[in-house]
Amino acid sequence: MNTNVYNVSIIGASGYAGAELVRILLSHPNAKLAALSSVSYTGQSIAELYPSYRNICEQILVSEEDAIEKGDVVFASLPHGLSQEIALECDRKGKLFIDLGADFRLDDGEIYTEWYGKDYIYPELHAKSVYGLSEIYRDKIKKATIIGNPGCYPTSVALALYPAIKNNLVKADDFIVDSKSGVTGAGKGLTQKTHFPECNEAFSPYNIGKHRHTPEIEQTLSHFAGNSVRITFVPHLLPVNRGIISTVYAENISGLTVEDIRAIYARTYEDEYFIRVLPSGEVANLKNVRMSNFCDISIHEDRHTSKLIIVSAIDNMVKGAAGQAVQNMNIALGINERAGIDFVPPAI
Amino acid sequence: MNTNVYNVSIIGASGYAGAELVRILLSHPNAKLAALSSVSYTGQSIAELYPSYRNICEQILVSEEDAIEKGDVVFASLPHGLSQEIALECDRKGKLFIDLGADFRLDDGEIYTEWYGKDYIYPELHAKSVYGLSEIYRDKIKKATIIGNPGCYPTSVALALYPAIKNNLVKADDFIVDSKSGVTGAGKGLTQKTHFPECNEAFSPYNIGKHRHTPEIEQTLSHFAGNSVRITFVPHLLPVNRGIISTVYAENISGLTVEDIRAIYARTYEDEYFIRVLPSGEVANLKNVRMSNFCDISIHEDRHTSKLIIVSAIDNMVKGAAGQAVQNMNIALGINERAGIDFVPPAI
Amino acid sequence: MNTNVYNVSIIGASGYAGAELVRILLSHPNAKLAALSSVSYTGQSIAELYPSYRNICEQILVSEEDAIEKGDVVFASLPHGLSQEIALECDRKGKLFIDLGADFRLDDGEIYTEWYGKDYIYPELHAKSVYGLSEIYRDKIKKATIIGNPGCYPTSVALALYPAIKNNLVKADDFIVDSKSGVTGAGKGLTQKTHFPECNEAFSPYNIGKHRHTPEIEQTLSHFAGNSVRITFVPHLLPVNRGIISTVYAENISGLTVEDIRAIYARTYEDEYFIRVLPSGEVANLKNVRMSNFCDISIHEDRHTSKLIIVSAIDNMVKGAAGQAVQNMNIALGINERAGIDFVPPAI
Amino acid sequence: MNTNVYNVSIIGASGYAGAELVRILLSHPNAKLAALSSVSYTGQSIAELYPSYRNICEQILVSEEDAIEKGDVVFASLPHGLSQEIALECDRKGKLFIDLGADFRLDDGEIYTEWYGKDYIYPELHAKSVYGLSEIYRDKIKKATIIGNPGCYPTSVALALYPAIKNNLVKADDFIVDSKSGVTGAGKGLTQKTHFPECNEAFSPYNIGKHRHTPEIEQTLSHFAGNSVRITFVPHLLPVNRGIISTVYAENISGLTVEDIRAIYARTYEDEYFIRVLPSGEVANLKNVRMSNFCDISIHEDRHTSKLIIVSAIDNMVKGAAGQAVQNMNIALGINERAGIDFVPPAI
Repeated sequence: MNTNVYNVSIIGASGYAGAELVRILLSHPNAKLAALSSVSYTGQSIAELYPSYRNICEQILVSEEDAIEKGDVVFASLPHGLSQEIALECDRKGKLFIDLGADFRLDDGEIYTEWYGKDYIYPELHAKSVYGLSEIYRDKIKKATIIGNPGCYPTSVALALYPAIKNNLVKADDFIVDSKSGVTGAGKGLTQKTHFPECNEAFSPYNIGKHRHTPEIEQTLSHFAGNSVRITFVPHLLPVNRGIISTVYAENISGLTVEDIRAIYARTYEDEYFIRVLPSGEVANLKNVRMSNFCDISIHEDRHTSKLIIVSAIDNMVKGAAGQAVQNMNIALGINERAGIDFVPPAI
Repeated sequence: MNTNVYNVSIIGASGYAGAELVRILLSHPNAKLAALSSVSYTGQSIAELYPSYRNICEQILVSEEDAIEKGDVVFASLPHGLSQEIALECDRKGKLFIDLGADFRLDDGEIYTEWYGKDYIYPELHAKSVYGLSEIYRDKIKKATIIGNPGCYPTSVALALYPAIKNNLVKADDFIVDSKSGVTGAGKGLTQKTHFPECNEAFSPYNIGKHRHTPEIEQTLSHFAGNSVRITFVPHLLPVNRGIISTVYAENISGLTVEDIRAIYARTYEDEYFIRVLPSGEVANLKNVRMSNFCDISIHEDRHTSKLIIVSAIDNMVKGAAGQAVQNMNIALGINERAGIDFVPPAI
Repeated sequence: MNTNVYNVSIIGASGYAGAELVRILLSHPNAKLAALSSVSYTGQSIAELYPSYRNICEQILVSEEDAIEKGDVVFASLPHGLSQEIALECDRKGKLFIDLGADFRLDDGEIYTEWYGKDYIYPELHAKSVYGLSEIYRDKIKKATIIGNPGCYPTSVALALYPAIKNNLVKADDFIVDSKSGVTGAGKGLTQKTHFPECNEAFSPYNIGKHRHTPEIEQTLSHFAGNSVRITFVPHLLPVNRGIISTVYAENISGLTVEDIRAIYARTYEDEYFIRVLPSGEVANLKNVRMSNFCDISIHEDRHTSKLIIVSAIDNMVKGAAGQAVQNMNIALGINERAGIDFVPPAI
Repeated sequence: MNTNVYNVSIIGASGYAGAELVRILLSHPNAKLAALSSVSYTGQSIAELYPSYRNICEQILVSEEDAIEKGDVVFASLPHGLSQEIALECDRKGKLFIDLGADFRLDDGEIYTEWYGKDYIYPELHAKSVYGLSEIYRDKIKKATIIGNPGCYPTSVALALYPAIKNNLVKADDFIVDSKSGVTGAGKGLTQKTHFPECNEAFSPYNIGKHRHTPEIEQTLSHFAGNSVRITFVPHLLPVNRGIISTVYAENISGLTVEDIRAIYARTYEDEYFIRVLPSGEVANLKNVRMSNFCDISIHEDRHTSKLIIVSAIDNMVKGAAGQAVQNMNIALGINERAGIDFVPPAI
């Protein structure tokens, strides 16, 4: 096991995912925070932005260039379109680059252009990059130098459906995915919708039929299935800080009982510490994974409609962003995969 | 228009739906609160239980018998199985009886027995009773003397699907219904799950594939369709006080665009003050119907899967319980239908 | 009793207090919404800004001039400094003007300048204006044409201390006032502090020793006392939408028991419908006054330190802003004082 | 530095403080969870009670006797009156005993009897026991075998006032303490008041002038002052899960500016990792200490009343209970004081 300590930089440290990376990496036994960068807050201390870090980390936010320079590993958490140049620079300098944004998630540049309105500039970098769904693509991640960290919703949906699709338990051409995310998922930027009085005691879907995570989810599920899979994806904004619940509806074509299917799930994930297949009688709840890298999955059925209902819960900031990014770093560097992300989720 | 003032009694006034009836009826121009009853709190003032009523209504909680005696109209909000004797008594004495519980919602006594574990004792009362989905069954309600007030989830789902089913816009044998309800829906009784620290910053589905509102919803949708309709119904507990969002997934078989379908919805409900079909670009949000009798409905599509997605929002305590019950009273008595329930939902 | 119907305009209808005025006036038997104005949203419908008003009120936001022109009564809810010209215009045209901002609250122009950085331009208007603490200054309000509606914190503190000061029960030179307000008190404007993820599950004081409501509270208490009163005022931001709790600490110099003092409070306010002095054993809770114009007051003591502790609860948007403003309108017009604001606060 | 690993037992592991001890100790490098006990849930797994521990810790809850037997260190988190026999047993067997309940906090048995209605049975144990306010009584804790862990409110107030009292900056006979606590402070037991719909969007003080933490706070402050100190203590229930803010009002008699006083605070606590004296311009917020053992303190003044206002923030479950208990264990065992409790509080 590799026990080296690496210099790690975070580009876009002032955003929520960036700040969560700071929290995680501060306690990581194999990481040293080399540099934090931010365009909007250069020159300020991260502790001024996030006073929870007062006395623990008072690093001054620097430029992107400095951050790249100082890191053996470089994380970026930026709006789409800004990561490609960073990837190029890291690639030239032989640094591991992990992108928490959307620029290295989609295989197909045309789909990226369709949904994000920008182009893939360096196709060779995209060809090299690996989609960092840790448990599923671990072998590729081990050898990766550019990792596209999955979106939060896609992580929750892909892990929920992987065993069912791989084992042909469900009709894999069409799924209903009803997801609910805490408000940190909308980021640090101010909007009327996330203004406390308008978000508190409120609940509603948004971006119905046009959320940018749709093609990413479909790409991953299609990989699993070996054929083209479509989803009807409806995300909702939940008045809590952290967490995603995805409720996934599928046609059970296996002839198996829900107990059998649960057993298959358990077996599929039996070596995966961060995925917990819940026993019969329990339901995934985002409360139980908060502040942790766990993905809880519960399997249910509606016998009278022969629907299989799979519920997955993650913390969107951890398994859905910074935690999985660090898990990917651990895998790529050959460090203990649980290093730095082995948080026990609080009971309350 | 009938402008009489009626004596109204509430049996089970100490529960949340009962207490909401108190709030509404206190401002109702045609109602006088004749008596409030409660088994557990007889002898106490309603204002001791709910100090928000201090000085406004300090009636002492009396027995069920007294409540029936004093009312021209009798509402009951009780656990299932307890309303049939009250209905009988009201029927004998010629009083209008409106049941907010489950005893008069299902046509078929066997289904009631299957889901609630009790029997229909007086089939003739059930034969006389009317299902109080106000906008849809108004004509029957006008002549009713026993009204089974719909459940909260069933109200939100039935109003969401009525125009689609009546106009054959969707495949009407199978629907996915993903609903989310505020915690008042779980009632006043204490449970670990609704203990603040375990409910706050939490979210999860419950009773998957076995919620008692399932047969009620299926019965109503089957009435609309003229054939047997099944649903896959997954309710979730939402950390807010009031409100239900139902996200309903249906197969669009009409060949119509979402704009056309929205127009059909608007036309279907054009005379219904309490149902608001939202314009294109808006999404139903429970925030906008809180404390009111409105049901907001927004229509969406996912073109690439040809799914129609219908979102409905109600306040579970008002349109989902006490408000619709009063609307039914108004209809049955020939009072102005909006009397006493014409609350403007707060902007914030 | 005057039963006329008045044309009422709201300047600044797009803000939270303005929108709450809309809600209240829509149900007011003696008011007709003549015009709503907004600088930022002119030309848009109020229902676009606040979809809870969809179908109920879809008035287009007009200019300030139009709003003044069309109203017999003009409310303004604007940032400080903007109301004086409106007051002048209303004064010239003989319209009743009620200001929900800070421009007509302070007697002394120098104190206004010190705390708000602007000047009193028309001292004669300030001389004419009346401070609209409804229950205390009713007689003056009856004859007023310009009313400065009290701030939310000042309302909660003044009503809490009036009986104690008037009856010389407490040492009236120095009070500790620890107040907590819901987030609507911070308004509709976006700030990092009121961004949901930073406000939810958070709590802290703000503006310690320098909140602009301090001189307003001191002015009112000094009027009550007949001498100069100072307060140490610490407001806190509470993660709820509506409501203020003020916990006021005073030295009991009366020799009376807390029961006696409670009786004096009850007697002082016995004719005041909107002020509820709670019986022994109850504590004011903002939950019980939400969505209503009530002010609940509970009286307590700490015998071992001889401190009197007075707790008051209001809804900052109603009794602390729009509700009291309408109450003042009712008084000034000779309408039934409770008209339009007689909401029953929900039990839950 | 001692790097041994100790067997640690938790009596009352099913309560919230007990469950938080589990979370902390699971990651503690010098602790091995030897046994968890619970009277009500004996035979069940801790992961059934708290599914967040699923797969991480599935220990079966055992009897109190077993727990004592297996631990080198024994924590108890029980209702008052139940810890004395456990302390006796631990004392006989030479185990370190740390009590999170109230039985070993008060020096004076008569005061204990007055406030808790029970008696000190073994005065010699109380004579041996040490009050575990870690930063202040570290030297005594080093040698302790029985430690009474401070209450949550007392911790927040004592740390807020220690530098001011020790340096004679404030009039030390009388303080106003206005505290606000998250709902976990009320424990796992179900009550109407902590039922979600009645606690959410609510706020109010409770136990005014009679909270049991009053004598404990007065005892500690009197120790600091060397004379008898009294406080007027008003706790409030805050609709958040975790955290306490105490706003403390004191008379500044030092002639020093708030900057000077802040410097004295900073100097007093300069070697204390877990106490952060905030710089000018910042205010303690419970958000910034959640899930951590930090106590944030900010110092303010109201110059026109010469009041010093000290605000302290802790996580009631960590520094206010389980975290400080582990800190005390670390001190008593000669382990690195930060071991196992060095959590970085999340930015969001």
